[in-house]
Amino acid sequence: MPSAPARKYRVGILGATGAVGQAFVRLLAGHPWFEITALAASERSAGKPYAEAARWIGDDRIPERVAAMPVLACDPAAVDAELVFSALDASAAGEVEPAFARAGRIVLSNAKSYRMDPDVPLLMPEVNPQHLDVLPTQRERRQWTGAIVTNANCASIPAAMVLAPLHARFGVRRFFMATMQAVSGAGYPGVPSLDILGNVIPYIKDEEPKIEIEVNKMLGHVSHGAIRPAPFAVSAHANRVPVEHGHTVCLSVEFEKPAGATEVLAELREWRGAEEARGLPTAPERPLVVRDEPDRPQPRRDAMEGEGMAVVVGRVRADPVFHVKLVAMAHNIVRGAAGASVLNAELMAARGLLDRP
Amino acid sequence: MPSAPARKYRVGILGATGAVGQAFVRLLAGHPWFEITALAASERSAGKPYAEAARWIGDDRIPERVAAMPVLACDPAAVDAELVFSALDASAAGEVEPAFARAGRIVLSNAKSYRMDPDVPLLMPEVNPQHLDVLPTQRERRQWTGAIVTNANCASIPAAMVLAPLHARFGVRRFFMATMQAVSGAGYPGVPSLDILGNVIPYIKDEEPKIEIEVNKMLGHVSHGAIRPAPFAVSAHANRVPVEHGHTVCLSVEFEKPAGATEVLAELREWRGAEEARGLPTAPERPLVVRDEPDRPQPRRDAMEGEGMAVVVGRVRADPVFHVKLVAMAHNIVRGAAGASVLNAELMAARGLLDRP
Amino acid sequence: MPSAPARKYRVGILGATGAVGQAFVRLLAGHPWFEITALAASERSAGKPYAEAARWIGDDRIPERVAAMPVLACDPAAVDAELVFSALDASAAGEVEPAFARAGRIVLSNAKSYRMDPDVPLLMPEVNPQHLDVLPTQRERRQWTGAIVTNANCASIPAAMVLAPLHARFGVRRFFMATMQAVSGAGYPGVPSLDILGNVIPYIKDEEPKIEIEVNKMLGHVSHGAIRPAPFAVSAHANRVPVEHGHTVCLSVEFEKPAGATEVLAELREWRGAEEARGLPTAPERPLVVRDEPDRPQPRRDAMEGEGMAVVVGRVRADPVFHVKLVAMAHNIVRGAAGASVLNAELMAARGLLDRP
Amino acid sequence: MPSAPARKYRVGILGATGAVGQAFVRLLAGHPWFEITALAASERSAGKPYAEAARWIGDDRIPERVAAMPVLACDPAAVDAELVFSALDASAAGEVEPAFARAGRIVLSNAKSYRMDPDVPLLMPEVNPQHLDVLPTQRERRQWTGAIVTNANCASIPAAMVLAPLHARFGVRRFFMATMQAVSGAGYPGVPSLDILGNVIPYIKDEEPKIEIEVNKMLGHVSHGAIRPAPFAVSAHANRVPVEHGHTVCLSVEFEKPAGATEVLAELREWRGAEEARGLPTAPERPLVVRDEPDRPQPRRDAMEGEGMAVVVGRVRADPVFHVKLVAMAHNIVRGAAGASVLNAELMAARGLLDRP
Repeated sequence: MPSAPARKYRVGILGATGAVGQAFVRLLAGHPWFEITALAASERSAGKPYAEAARWIGDDRIPERVAAMPVLACDPAAVDAELVFSALDASAAGEVEPAFARAGRIVLSNAKSYRMDPDVPLLMPEVNPQHLDVLPTQRERRQWTGAIVTNANCASIPAAMVLAPLHARFGVRRFFMATMQAVSGAGYPGVPSLDILGNVIPYIKDEEPKIEIEVNKMLGHVSHGAIRPAPFAVSAHANRVPVEHGHTVCLSVEFEKPAGATEVLAELREWRGAEEARGLPTAPERPLVVRDEPDRPQPRRDAMEGEGMAVVVGRVRADPVFHVKLVAMAHNIVRGAAGASVLNAELMAARGLLDRP
Repeated sequence: MPSAPARKYRVGILGATGAVGQAFVRLLAGHPWFEITALAASERSAGKPYAEAARWIGDDRIPERVAAMPVLACDPAAVDAELVFSALDASAAGEVEPAFARAGRIVLSNAKSYRMDPDVPLLMPEVNPQHLDVLPTQRERRQWTGAIVTNANCASIPAAMVLAPLHARFGVRRFFMATMQAVSGAGYPGVPSLDILGNVIPYIKDEEPKIEIEVNKMLGHVSHGAIRPAPFAVSAHANRVPVEHGHTVCLSVEFEKPAGATEVLAELREWRGAEEARGLPTAPERPLVVRDEPDRPQPRRDAMEGEGMAVVVGRVRADPVFHVKLVAMAHNIVRGAAGASVLNAELMAARGLLDRP
Repeated sequence: MPSAPARKYRVGILGATGAVGQAFVRLLAGHPWFEITALAASERSAGKPYAEAARWIGDDRIPERVAAMPVLACDPAAVDAELVFSALDASAAGEVEPAFARAGRIVLSNAKSYRMDPDVPLLMPEVNPQHLDVLPTQRERRQWTGAIVTNANCASIPAAMVLAPLHARFGVRRFFMATMQAVSGAGYPGVPSLDILGNVIPYIKDEEPKIEIEVNKMLGHVSHGAIRPAPFAVSAHANRVPVEHGHTVCLSVEFEKPAGATEVLAELREWRGAEEARGLPTAPERPLVVRDEPDRPQPRRDAMEGEGMAVVVGRVRADPVFHVKLVAMAHNIVRGAAGASVLNAELMAARGLLDRP
Repeated sequence: MPSAPARKYRVGILGATGAVGQAFVRLLAGHPWFEITALAASERSAGKPYAEAARWIGDDRIPERVAAMPVLACDPAAVDAELVFSALDASAAGEVEPAFARAGRIVLSNAKSYRMDPDVPLLMPEVNPQHLDVLPTQRERRQWTGAIVTNANCASIPAAMVLAPLHARFGVRRFFMATMQAVSGAGYPGVPSLDILGNVIPYIKDEEPKIEIEVNKMLGHVSHGAIRPAPFAVSAHANRVPVEHGHTVCLSVEFEKPAGATEVLAELREWRGAEEARGLPTAPERPLVVRDEPDRPQPRRDAMEGEGMAVVVGRVRADPVFHVKLVAMAHNIVRGAAGASVLNAELMAARGLLDRP
């Protein structure tokens, strides 16, 4: 069980007004280790009080203290914070995030811009905490006093979580994955209702290529200061469905070492994730929750499992083509985005990586 | 182009009050070759006028002539018709359909009860019209003067249609398939709104095992009076989504003879289906309609293509695990059920199989 | 602030397997004053463990202790409980509820069967706690040692709550009300998805006549052992919309004493409900929550306000025909059904009405 | 029955790329009296081929001839057309529409900018064709050689249609109206799915004030070159619901001359609208279609009645506060916007108002 840090860290949120930015506000407002000291967003919002700049889309209210905070520009000089959580789009993140890292800040990023760089962790505390070992290389190579640590695309995360114990035990050779992704994954305003009411859109721009490389990196290993992706092949089909929150993924998996549904299910039931991640404030009691009912997981009913941080898995069964088929589901905004970044920061805090030498 | 039969055939509908039964009424009410002479349903409905027994769920109205017809029992003695279209559940179909076949009627069935019997065609006129050649064996073996001809499960049909030309040309070795199925596939009242609003149910009872054998049979060949299924392996994931009509299927396909997206796309564009099926009254102008937009097919926008009888296909692209990935979609009630049976009957009429020797 | 009773009361749930029955289980499982000692339902369920008999439809799990309890018949002899919460349909409630009252049990009913009887309270603790004063008359007249206390239809409740302070202050003369009601109001399986996906059904069987008399009774007064309904006229339009939980009602109200939006808003903001109801375990901090945003309340975002027990009101504005227009919304299963009954029982406990003389 | 004009009129569409603009393209592409000669839209689209500039949102395809047409600027000098159909927002319409009228073009407008001017018809051919009599005043006063003729807000139209015969016969004194409006009424991209999936938004910006004056004007009379609104009072509640097309309105109506449900229903059944409008190409066979089922009209099932041009009415019943309650529904994009303008133009053609003296 990690011990709490000696003091609260001062944290900022970049892209604070959007759907993921709002989730950061929600998760950080009462956080035991972090204190929101800065909210930043695009030029359009800068200067306004947060409550006015953000169109709050939850079923709760903006935390009172945050509501009145002014929105700042995404500029390291303006943002008073030791670490920043970034919900920026790749278009903005490409320049803004390194500027913060250069200025000595730890950046916890949701953008794809640096995710696949070998010296940038694509971190999941339960799965690959050792990937943080590339940070010295990152700093040296890039001449940063800060750092960038990323988390994966919201659809890659449930796949990586459910495959982590299976890869460790049986070796994943290849898998097929079809997603059914919630509209909140596209942010706000995001998907027009005219496009998705009573409909399925079998396409999400740039999504499949991400899925087809990110899981490999998350399940890879560190060697000589670089993350080497696991070498399995991935076939992804990404679909948008009229669901508010929760990405559902159907997987058919082939292993190096043949394994049937019974062994796989036993492995999933038993797995608790990396020791280091247990007890972190945002870590769910169990990273994987197995449901035995034939028709679970379901996004509307299971997305909030483990306060949105658990991956729910079910329907583990034999696959006529590969070895097993199963269904996994996770809350795309919590486990798949803001919560993932917060958990990453907690792991770094527990490791002492947020305190300068 | 098939010539119209010399006379109209007298047709009945079994299970006429349900969702598929209503689709039969809609498709047959003004049919050039068939005339509805009998409507039959469960005991509960028998005796009532059709308009009272059926809770009509379309956006049109019950054809006037049909509205007043009395609902009969599903008994060959009561049903005055040469051929019957059956929308019965497997539970009822198991006994009722053979009773009609024994009584000399041609039964066009949507039930799974006899679908997989080697002497029963699982017919798709564009794909396997030659499967009708098993009918003499069926009659002889079963001592029927009528016959049973079936069509496949509503999710198997789009897969079989899109794979038909590819199997012929490249040989399908195995494929993955994830479905996103409309609620009308579960009939009426079917899926409770409390289960599916804003949700995905990653399970449809008994659906995956059907898909994993039916496509093989549809793409099989006839030998010694029996249909021999094509030997490829199939991995199916069946999901229910909040869509009214139209089943979407994501496929990843491996061929015997390697083929890339370009060749596959060319094949799909060119294919017109079996010569024999063209010009049948219910046959769409093209059985496969290729859409080039990156985000099609979509059920709400494409389900009525070809008056609901076309399979719409798109997103043909290279697959990192197998050879190609693609998305297909078809109207589950029209192409996937009632329309399929009607087209089957038309093929039989054109072949002269509806006229007794 | 009411003091806790000296002991826990033994409570049963009638109709425990349906949507409202499940809500009772959820609300009572950890209740400080009540302990579930019996679950009863229809013949079909009786004898099975609850977890098997009930198709649990929430996003939580059946409380462990309850899951294993056997489902009993709705018979006072079988049900060991001092008070029973009834989620029975009117068809069953008509006979079952008086049988329990006759057998000395307090029945907290959601059914319409006895709601409008002048000696039966249609109770809302914040609005009309004094209606409990008719109980002696009820017992005497009916020769019951127990009693029946009812709560209103789920659509009447938000109207009654928002009108309570306005009626007290300005006198309601008449009002229009159009509802947009969630599908959970129809129970489970309830509304077929084929009927409501992307649709509105401008009709709910028997709903408008209930609304047009129940609000009057709730805002009425007790005289000579009978509840005399308030004499205003009500015009109700009931609609079903594709929303999971939360009934939204639009009201246009005419008062005896003219009042504008400002005064009405001030009244709504200030009102805290009857003193007696405050601090009851299930009572929300505020029975009415006023939202100032122009587009609130919204069911998906506001239904869980006050843990589902608050009525949320907004858009108070001048009405060109009557005096003011406004929108109110409440969770139909919690505030509008199970939670209402539980709160009623708590009021009775606080008054000492659950302890026999 | 109006006779066809001697020639086809050359027509342009302003705001051709949006949801209503697309509906104009759909309705005009094969129109017997009109020929699309120009498509205009905002600067951003100008210069592109229509198929590229417009994100086509229907379940059909862009008419081939139109797909290749270049999009022009909204400038009378660029737009070669005798009459223009305007789907412009009020922000653009305020300046663009008079510029066209000044340049001698007939403008058929959907914008609110000039709707309420006494010399501008708010035209419904079945209801107030005589309102065209103000055009000479309009031209003289404004020094226009062209003209502006408008149609009402999409929610006002079903109300005006159903009240037209009732006002003529019984005199409307006041009414209450609650709408449930489809998302397409907000255009494309319009309502974000995150706001409306499984939700109701009880607010549409600026909508209620429009409804509360437009019906009056539509049912008003012409006197001294100006339209005098009917003097009844209107209370409107506007709501957005997760429906694709079709605005449903609940009405409670008080008449000058008391009338009950039976008389009102008889009047609605009998009414055929103004003689002049009958037989126009876009006029539905019946402007009002009465449904007798207790649960109709429903938007998903009834919006396309009369090819989207009929108003469907049902649930006519006694009202406890006023005289009658009823429900009306119309396709907001067809009857409520583009189709209304096209029908208006047809009426003008039939009257010879499109041919210059």
